[in-house]
Amino acid sequence: MAQAQIIKTKVGIVGGGPAGLMLSHLLAKQGIDNLVVESRDHETIRNTHRAGILEAGSVKMLTDTGVDGRVLTEGDEHEGIDLRFNGESHPLDFKDLVDATVTLYAQNEVFVDLAAARKRDGGDVRYEAEVTEVLDLETTTPKFRFSDKDGAAFEVHCDILVGADGSRSFCRRAVTGEQDYKIEYPFAWFGILTEAPKSAPELIYANSPHGFALISQRSETVQRMYFQCDPAENVNDWSDDRIWAELQKRVDGPDGFQLKQGPIFDKTVLAFRSFVREPLSHGRMFLAGDAGHTVPPTGAKGLNLAFADVKVLFEAIDSFYATGSDALLEGYSDLALQRVWKAQNFSYWMTSMLHTREDASPFETKRALGELATVTGSRFGQQYLAESYTGWPHK
Amino acid sequence: MAQAQIIKTKVGIVGGGPAGLMLSHLLAKQGIDNLVVESRDHETIRNTHRAGILEAGSVKMLTDTGVDGRVLTEGDEHEGIDLRFNGESHPLDFKDLVDATVTLYAQNEVFVDLAAARKRDGGDVRYEAEVTEVLDLETTTPKFRFSDKDGAAFEVHCDILVGADGSRSFCRRAVTGEQDYKIEYPFAWFGILTEAPKSAPELIYANSPHGFALISQRSETVQRMYFQCDPAENVNDWSDDRIWAELQKRVDGPDGFQLKQGPIFDKTVLAFRSFVREPLSHGRMFLAGDAGHTVPPTGAKGLNLAFADVKVLFEAIDSFYATGSDALLEGYSDLALQRVWKAQNFSYWMTSMLHTREDASPFETKRALGELATVTGSRFGQQYLAESYTGWPHK
Repeated sequence: MAQAQIIKTKVGIVGGGPAGLMLSHLLAKQGIDNLVVESRDHETIRNTHRAGILEAGSVKMLTDTGVDGRVLTEGDEHEGIDLRFNGESHPLDFKDLVDATVTLYAQNEVFVDLAAARKRDGGDVRYEAEVTEVLDLETTTPKFRFSDKDGAAFEVHCDILVGADGSRSFCRRAVTGEQDYKIEYPFAWFGILTEAPKSAPELIYANSPHGFALISQRSETVQRMYFQCDPAENVNDWSDDRIWAELQKRVDGPDGFQLKQGPIFDKTVLAFRSFVREPLSHGRMFLAGDAGHTVPPTGAKGLNLAFADVKVLFEAIDSFYATGSDALLEGYSDLALQRVWKAQNFSYWMTSMLHTREDASPFETKRALGELATVTGSRFGQQYLAESYTGWPHK
Repeated sequence: MAQAQIIKTKVGIVGGGPAGLMLSHLLAKQGIDNLVVESRDHETIRNTHRAGILEAGSVKMLTDTGVDGRVLTEGDEHEGIDLRFNGESHPLDFKDLVDATVTLYAQNEVFVDLAAARKRDGGDVRYEAEVTEVLDLETTTPKFRFSDKDGAAFEVHCDILVGADGSRSFCRRAVTGEQDYKIEYPFAWFGILTEAPKSAPELIYANSPHGFALISQRSETVQRMYFQCDPAENVNDWSDDRIWAELQKRVDGPDGFQLKQGPIFDKTVLAFRSFVREPLSHGRMFLAGDAGHTVPPTGAKGLNLAFADVKVLFEAIDSFYATGSDALLEGYSDLALQRVWKAQNFSYWMTSMLHTREDASPFETKRALGELATVTGSRFGQQYLAESYTGWPHK
């Protein structure tokens, strides 16, 4: 077996999704040498449909740091959502409630922008490179090994190793004996893409006796919609007609609201769960984004939480190189976890308030409706939800 | 068997607790003839310790309708509470947050005032009178039978029958086949009365790894405290020392907060559950207060919800006699239930956020702490909780 080629860098980043690339971008701007290693190829990531609701703070990270302004021109700014229950619409006007908005901009577009910026700025991003080992995490020179698509072996020596390698994180799983917090849900989302005009100006989050539905958007001509389903659901059992009937049932109401239908060209079942690894660091390895925590999509927090981690971690790394002190690095996990648990709670709350469960008692179903009535019936309740949805201020 | 003596009245009220007496008082003020029948004797009710946190709307009902001003002079107005978790205090200033306060005034004092007002105004309240039957509910002359303490039998003929006879309501149980929503909790409260000064200016709601505690008050020299316990707990197994150690453990923190101890002269285990009967009416019988719904005490909503029912029901009855239309009577259940379900949700929320459960996953425990951090860390969150605690506006 050939000797691994050694690469020396300051920050070794495992994972070239939005978290890894954003961190790499920020570090490069500060002149901090780094390397990104990603197992998938560029085209695969570019074509992986993921949710994309960006908090204003996340949009700012893209624009203010010089990644790209495309999110402003091609993203779709939303000033609210519609909470629908008992067949009635309850619009929440974020702009009015908390003077904030969110922007619909698909996660793969965020990836495209970040990947292009790294390329433009001469960043070292290795795609189709499989990490096979992380080692020496508890020393001041953590290392990881990877092989490229031609089978060549490399060993990266760095000061700081970052695991930004997604929910099935190799880096996270390399450390055992720490605390994993998790819950599974007895349901999943059936997601579709359809060629159709928007059904409504704002996203609709619908609680119905038939289950949850989210009427989301992608563009003027392509829409994204989801409905709560069994995790074992097979997309091949669902004709377009059956899907539309199911979605329509969940938004039906005395106002006669009708979804605008079109051909469905993508169907996926998205399982989801809540997960947190604690702590988010182990020696000189730091986890960021989905590698450290995953949230159900109901709260639209996944990507935003990854960017929030990156912001905290970047400042800690920057401080480390500027001052030589690792105080902020040592505080990274605690500080990032504060926001993580708020987002976990918000995601859980939105999920449990809006979804139906077969094992729910009749009391629980009525209580959730009582909660929706309390929140939408109170300006404070609306503000509390709106602030969480649009994102708490970054520290 | 002797023939029952027939009593004719407009409104027959079963139950002489705060709900029944307040309704009787309001009706009498409008000149609407009514009769109250209560199974217990005056002294027993007067000496039954119950919680007593009155929303401003409930205080107003006592003072503005001429029951008594004693709540203002002997009640203790509170401008906030303290949410304590992770061993730290998080004061919520209701006055600042939502310009509202609550008043600590024990429920038996509310009873004393109402009973005295009914006596003063010549109200017909029969204590130690056991209801044995309700009948003809679906006619325009509902009836109930009762026997007094000497065994004399009576039959009350009325236009409207009100079941305000508490959580074990005879009236409610007389109607079967309707929907009861309920959940049981795997814990109870161990409540004490102690001769001690106040431990803190405001009530403390404490979440701790050892379970929930509520440090409440009764007067300058007598305090009320509770700690979460097993429903099967036997008060005789608990010495004063053991109780104080348990309470102190639940409020311990780096700030060194210490409870002020004194002799304990009352110990009770309070089981609690969430319960709602739907609808709150059956023909010409209407349920009010605990007879129709019970809440866990964590949200301090029981008495306030009973008064809110009475307000809605009084207006419906008043409209019935003023206009001859029973439209408001028919709308009573739906209208009252709107507030009931908000209060059920709030009580459930406070309970689940603050208590520990043996069957809770580690995720759930951390999530609840994330929720407490979100609520206390956000002015909107604080306002949302404060508005619910001090009471939503009456319709």
